[in-house]
Amino acid sequence: MKTKTLDVLFHETLKDIYYAERKILRALPKMARGASSPELQAAFEKHKEETEGHVERLQQVFELLGKPARGKTCPAIDGILEEGEEALQDFADSPALDASLIAAAQAVEHYEIARYGTLVRWAQVMGMKDAVKLLEQTLQEEGVTDEILTQIADGSVNKSALKAA
Amino acid sequence: MKTKTLDVLFHETLKDIYYAERKILRALPKMARGASSPELQAAFEKHKEETEGHVERLQQVFELLGKPARGKTCPAIDGILEEGEEALQDFADSPALDASLIAAAQAVEHYEIARYGTLVRWAQVMGMKDAVKLLEQTLQEEGVTDEILTQIADGSVNKSALKAA
Repeated sequence: MKTKTLDVLFHETLKDIYYAERKILRALPKMARGASSPELQAAFEKHKEETEGHVERLQQVFELLGKPARGKTCPAIDGILEEGEEALQDFADSPALDASLIAAAQAVEHYEIARYGTLVRWAQVMGMKDAVKLLEQTLQEEGVTDEILTQIADGSVNKSALKAA
Repeated sequence: MKTKTLDVLFHETLKDIYYAERKILRALPKMARGASSPELQAAFEKHKEETEGHVERLQQVFELLGKPARGKTCPAIDGILEEGEEALQDFADSPALDASLIAAAQAVEHYEIARYGTLVRWAQVMGMKDAVKLLEQTLQEEGVTDEILTQIADGSVNKSALKAA
């Protein structure tokens, strides 16, 4: 019998994003310290606090499944964050540093938007209403963070990246 | 003098997404062959053709920059596609296979949406109107592909993943 049904996939993907969120939590302070715009620093610090909430919500979803909260290595977020680290090194002290950090952070946000979007739809079809609510809250916050980063980029960061200081 | 300005970052990111698009081009036939729903197979095949156009548009943007079209290793897409390969293996012959392939493909789409969204805004601020047009066309197509995948998931794939065959 073919046994790997949607509940198995849901659980695997939950472990994937749980690993990712906790890794992002460790990356955000580095990104905040690296940013030169105080506005961008503040955005990264605020998102770190939100991310703590995302980790807690995921723990609640594991509880709803009756499973221990456990991550599994997610090569996608490892690769995405590796590019963020490269940006920090390659553009350190350069006018395009903040633009590169925003680009890296938006790649992270979009990974999360993809994953939470998927998890919400799976939870819906499995009739897990409480999980839908928790996952939708996080999905909404990731979307807002992505928009805020675009606003910061359009506001000052991209323009000030045009010319050598 | 601080010399790494936005044009340098734009060029580096162009190389990143050029590598990514060409790697996606090689992954899509595998995903199409792996999919069990004919609708999903057709969506992957159609997106492969579109992706060929995305590669050509990127070559035109390189030309606008007066630079050779060259990729550079993008650990993000390597990681994202690695998860797609894992999905193909772990869920082969299982009812949740197509759901897992759609999730993997949407992670790819969102990576591209993030990168093209960023490149469009940078091209705008640099006054590269022709590049904006080319990059926006691709951004729009990636968004449509993401929506089509959601429709296929909601239409039949997720529901048929609920029960063992």
